[in-house]
Amino acid sequence: MPLTPEQALEVAAAREAAQPTRRPTAPGLEALLFQALPVLDHGFVRVIDYMGDDAAVVQAARVSYGRGTRAANEDRGLIRYLMRHRHSTPFEMCEIKYHVKLPIFIARQWIRHRTANVNEYSARYSILDREFYLPEPDQLAAQSSANRQGRGDVLQGEEAARVMDLLRQDAMQTYDHYAWMLNEDAGGTPADPARQGLARELARMNLTLNTYTQWYWKTDLHNLLHFLSLRADAHAQYEIRAYAEVMLDTVKAWVPACHEAFMDYRMGAATLSAGMLAVVRRLLAGEAVPQQGSGLSKREWRELMEMLGRPVA
Amino acid sequence: MPLTPEQALEVAAAREAAQPTRRPTAPGLEALLFQALPVLDHGFVRVIDYMGDDAAVVQAARVSYGRGTRAANEDRGLIRYLMRHRHSTPFEMCEIKYHVKLPIFIARQWIRHRTANVNEYSARYSILDREFYLPEPDQLAAQSSANRQGRGDVLQGEEAARVMDLLRQDAMQTYDHYAWMLNEDAGGTPADPARQGLARELARMNLTLNTYTQWYWKTDLHNLLHFLSLRADAHAQYEIRAYAEVMLDTVKAWVPACHEAFMDYRMGAATLSAGMLAVVRRLLAGEAVPQQGSGLSKREWRELMEMLGRPVA
Amino acid sequence: MPLTPEQALEVAAAREAAQPTRRPTAPGLEALLFQALPVLDHGFVRVIDYMGDDAAVVQAARVSYGRGTRAANEDRGLIRYLMRHRHSTPFEMCEIKYHVKLPIFIARQWIRHRTANVNEYSARYSILDREFYLPEPDQLAAQSSANRQGRGDVLQGEEAARVMDLLRQDAMQTYDHYAWMLNEDAGGTPADPARQGLARELARMNLTLNTYTQWYWKTDLHNLLHFLSLRADAHAQYEIRAYAEVMLDTVKAWVPACHEAFMDYRMGAATLSAGMLAVVRRLLAGEAVPQQGSGLSKREWRELMEMLGRPVA
Amino acid sequence: MPLTPEQALEVAAAREAAQPTRRPTAPGLEALLFQALPVLDHGFVRVIDYMGDDAAVVQAARVSYGRGTRAANEDRGLIRYLMRHRHSTPFEMCEIKYHVKLPIFIARQWIRHRTANVNEYSARYSILDREFYLPEPDQLAAQSSANRQGRGDVLQGEEAARVMDLLRQDAMQTYDHYAWMLNEDAGGTPADPARQGLARELARMNLTLNTYTQWYWKTDLHNLLHFLSLRADAHAQYEIRAYAEVMLDTVKAWVPACHEAFMDYRMGAATLSAGMLAVVRRLLAGEAVPQQGSGLSKREWRELMEMLGRPVA
Repeated sequence: MPLTPEQALEVAAAREAAQPTRRPTAPGLEALLFQALPVLDHGFVRVIDYMGDDAAVVQAARVSYGRGTRAANEDRGLIRYLMRHRHSTPFEMCEIKYHVKLPIFIARQWIRHRTANVNEYSARYSILDREFYLPEPDQLAAQSSANRQGRGDVLQGEEAARVMDLLRQDAMQTYDHYAWMLNEDAGGTPADPARQGLARELARMNLTLNTYTQWYWKTDLHNLLHFLSLRADAHAQYEIRAYAEVMLDTVKAWVPACHEAFMDYRMGAATLSAGMLAVVRRLLAGEAVPQQGSGLSKREWRELMEMLGRPVA
Repeated sequence: MPLTPEQALEVAAAREAAQPTRRPTAPGLEALLFQALPVLDHGFVRVIDYMGDDAAVVQAARVSYGRGTRAANEDRGLIRYLMRHRHSTPFEMCEIKYHVKLPIFIARQWIRHRTANVNEYSARYSILDREFYLPEPDQLAAQSSANRQGRGDVLQGEEAARVMDLLRQDAMQTYDHYAWMLNEDAGGTPADPARQGLARELARMNLTLNTYTQWYWKTDLHNLLHFLSLRADAHAQYEIRAYAEVMLDTVKAWVPACHEAFMDYRMGAATLSAGMLAVVRRLLAGEAVPQQGSGLSKREWRELMEMLGRPVA
Repeated sequence: MPLTPEQALEVAAAREAAQPTRRPTAPGLEALLFQALPVLDHGFVRVIDYMGDDAAVVQAARVSYGRGTRAANEDRGLIRYLMRHRHSTPFEMCEIKYHVKLPIFIARQWIRHRTANVNEYSARYSILDREFYLPEPDQLAAQSSANRQGRGDVLQGEEAARVMDLLRQDAMQTYDHYAWMLNEDAGGTPADPARQGLARELARMNLTLNTYTQWYWKTDLHNLLHFLSLRADAHAQYEIRAYAEVMLDTVKAWVPACHEAFMDYRMGAATLSAGMLAVVRRLLAGEAVPQQGSGLSKREWRELMEMLGRPVA
Repeated sequence: MPLTPEQALEVAAAREAAQPTRRPTAPGLEALLFQALPVLDHGFVRVIDYMGDDAAVVQAARVSYGRGTRAANEDRGLIRYLMRHRHSTPFEMCEIKYHVKLPIFIARQWIRHRTANVNEYSARYSILDREFYLPEPDQLAAQSSANRQGRGDVLQGEEAARVMDLLRQDAMQTYDHYAWMLNEDAGGTPADPARQGLARELARMNLTLNTYTQWYWKTDLHNLLHFLSLRADAHAQYEIRAYAEVMLDTVKAWVPACHEAFMDYRMGAATLSAGMLAVVRRLLAGEAVPQQGSGLSKREWRELMEMLGRPVA
């Protein structure tokens, strides 16, 4: 994902400027600001702006007049308490804005999270770049046989080679036809003056779903963490997880105490149903509990045994 | 957009069933329920369910215990008042659920309206049909030279023919390769047992943006009208306007008084800035007002003259 | 909470009417429709309208054309799976509308749930009734010493009597002064023609927070269940829990399979952090794990022991 | 609204600190940061934090890599265009956080705007201050006879005096009883060790609706402007308008170009229905148009004449 020299200059200019502010700042995140953190083959995540820090969560929870004089220690304890008990409103008091470059089929997953502000680069108004996502060989996975929405083994040999060729060639061909239909170069002059060129809002329909798009995406910390809990999870599609993992790093740089609490109480946590809890209590009492008669379906039983790190049988 | 015989049977079965209910019903919309109203070449809009009617708007505005005994006339007056003065909460008390089949590039425009509930057919989990949008010849428009996000004249002759060929061939080819990569027939059996088949969540990236998808889309009347005010507007892209217009018909069948007020006070309405209002007052006072010295920019002046149906010069 | 004869007539009229509909109906909820289910001393919950049923959740999850021919059994299994894995969008496809009468201080807690549509009776526009909440003697609890936002023992004797008197007398006195300041009877005629009467939007500020208000409140099933998981919980304030429990009954009558899954996987469930899970695994392996060295704080340890039904020490 | 010495110190400390940041800053708003801007008799508005500036709106609309080199002039033009055509997403890219102290009956109006993040001081957890709103004599208005939710003439003489007394005495008495029921001083020690004290979550119900509460309220610029367009409007209740007007000043200090466009295209704007536009066109053509036969109802006619600054008859 090399930026064009022009874009690199814009980013460098933004990073150079520094102004004094009375607002809370997060030094860890300041260091990352505006940098394009690479994701996949042509994508990136850039933090463009942010509001608030760990102390802002505490301050909102207390509706206080200033940042107070309590020990950082006490603040950390309150943040952990709020996270553990799923309080949401104090975490809504921090906000972050990203610039993201991502394949369209991933953008379509992402946009299902509705509590965010979005400005997407408009292919109705502008011309998209000739960039499309092609998986690395070790990500070219077969359909999982166990899970209808998962991946199995990595494709090998001829099948893998043929799939890569098809993805690459189809993306290049449909883009070339898109460009031909538009009939304009970057500056807007017709490539062939004898033709009119198809409207941009129509020509775009010829692009494949791995074409890259980009957007500004802004959300609050609570909704960001909810997004990350789903998209940095092992069940998420690899391609969106790649973005989520880079974003987790930005959260760590921004609000380290919230990040720590999130990793402990959300990412690594498991929810046990009433029935599962009952089984755990019986097991702890030394009882041998078989799935039959446990009150749990086979599927639930398997899920519980996985949580407890026990063999399913 | 012919449904498969199976789908047609499901729709017919849904239409046959009738149960008694104590809830308000909208006879006009009951007549349309479950029918696939065709849009574009393979798309449709189907009303799946609804809640409330014109009287429900009135009842919520009055927070009353029943449907009251006021004349329909008074209800209509209140609805017009609420619409004119942009009251929003009473209109939020009606809800509608659609099943829509639409091209992906239109789905991407549509989803920007965030205050709705959506369940989309998952290409991560299932296999998409071999259906893609191809514009009618009279919709194959050139890029507008005046408006960066608009259409100009319709393409003609060889250019038009070539564009149509490219759109059709690229969509067919990328779909065929999608199917080859999946390596499974409808029943899930491998087409070629010697191959593993690419994961669905990856193979879908080879499809073009005019491939059809479908979703359940549910929203309240207020947000639906906001959506329609933007998407049934002359500035909206033709392809989404085609959906909006069919949906406007369903609104008319459902809540005729709200529909009437909406057409009068929202669809046909124009907003005049303080500066525009000042110009209108001067014109009404018989003054000859030139753009220069009107306090309006050239662009605003042109917009105002269009609203007033006067020549711009 | 006796309705006035007029209101009772309106409710009866609404319950008598029955029309045929092609929409899914929920017979259990039809039976309750429009009835004022009493809560606290003057409050109620009335279901005014609804959309969808258990099968609608399934249909949306499958984006299907009809209600299908699968066994009810399979539908129940899918609903349980969706609930267990916290899928939210299929549950958003059902909608319900309540008419609620409730004390203002409870309305202020309730309104913090923002994803709902609300029309409240306007004290700026109309005159509130002379009704205020007074707790039953067994709810007149002291401040909890353990929990800053909880209740302790029930007040006794003279203190209890004095508190009840203060609450009753202050509510009556402030209401009487409110009425005096308004200077109008129910019909709008001045009580004292020599006075002008204070504007309603000002006079209302003299009312106490236990005065009853009412609203129409409409939300989707997913957000309703989230509301109920917080407000029917043992940590919720008794007065809002009283509403939540009556609403849980309406959910059971409406979507029994969703209700059952909700009770199993949400209401009775517990979330274990990564650290708590590690402790459980060690316990199951027969290890004696003391709090010290468990990696859990004292507070977390206590929370875990409570979930597992074990003594804290 | 004098802050306590402790609070004043906290505010001063927050104002003194200054750190370097790479983020866009708004010098005009930095100057106001953390200051308690007084509203009504005991209320205030304090800007606690913000994100973005005028240029951030432009940058998001263009999805650009940096702040660009265009003339401020061009940016202003784009902002005006976006505002005039009701584009909303670029304005959502700026965020602001307020700390507000306000009477409860105003908080109840305010909270109806749902697209904001709120943390309110909890009277379930803490003890409210002894502060309540009492209108200035010139705001003690009679009920409007023309408008059911408006004010008429200011009350005079004995009626005014009596109303003021009632408001003051009832607020003081109910607060004193609240304090007695709580039975604790600021430090939490029982006032009377022989009594238990009523739970805070119950005692609060004895307070009147003019008691002051406070909250952190955070929203994006688009939603803030929508809020202000309704609440700084002449039809809004005076007490909330007083807050909206102070907030408008903070918007001006923060994003002057957006503020200017908002004043021109939203605050001073008027929406004309299709029927009203038709009348204006006829009037401009020199036709004498009477209300009868204009196609407008009497009410609409009156509204139109007011917009045009013409006599109604």
